[in-house]
Amino acid sequence: MIEPPASHRHLLDQPLFAHLATARPDGAPQTNPMWFLYEEGRILMTHTRERQKFRNLERDARFALSIVDPANPYSYLEVRGVLESTEPDPAGHLYDRLAERYGAPWRVTDAPVRVILRFRPERFLAR
Amino acid sequence: MIEPPASHRHLLDQPLFAHLATARPDGAPQTNPMWFLYEEGRILMTHTRERQKFRNLERDARFALSIVDPANPYSYLEVRGVLESTEPDPAGHLYDRLAERYGAPWRVTDAPVRVILRFRPERFLAR
Repeated sequence: MIEPPASHRHLLDQPLFAHLATARPDGAPQTNPMWFLYEEGRILMTHTRERQKFRNLERDARFALSIVDPANPYSYLEVRGVLESTEPDPAGHLYDRLAERYGAPWRVTDAPVRVILRFRPERFLAR
Repeated sequence: MIEPPASHRHLLDQPLFAHLATARPDGAPQTNPMWFLYEEGRILMTHTRERQKFRNLERDARFALSIVDPANPYSYLEVRGVLESTEPDPAGHLYDRLAERYGAPWRVTDAPVRVILRFRPERFLAR
């Protein structure tokens, strides 16, 4: 397990939006802002099975994400790695946990198709 | 020339950070926050010839970027398209223009290696 740089670790602990880049079936990049949770060396995100990002990752597990420091927009963290596993989240527990972390007033409405994406960082790039 | 959706056009007019996704030589995604300017239907960014992103785009011109609305983080714009052209910017004019747009107190220091990246949007996805 690799460790994030101490200088940027706080960006993983705050409820910030991570811009997740994936490769589309034709290899073109795609990027979307996402909720995330950093726990036990993994980045967790909630997703639904139907969406393109999920299909992208099923085909090519490599991802990159970037998070900007709201206190200094010229400081940011990029994380690169692979999708390590996915698991169903039929009660939407991760969704609800993230909704609470991000202060969203709603809760999960599409739990049956929710999955947990577990990303393994392979490289942290801090600037 | 395609038009951005009216509902999200303001995100292109504000000095927000665009998270730029490109494909690395091995096809893995990379993402980085970037200054940008939207002008005459093109997205302009400043870069240096030495950096990996630039080399990525020389090899595979396809890009995606995402911009979150600071007034509503659940509203965002994704832009997909291709790098249409690059041109030298030996006086760093675009850099300085962007620095002013973003309220940065500094000005260009590496003008000789600065290039202007001109991206042509092919698709806007608004959420």
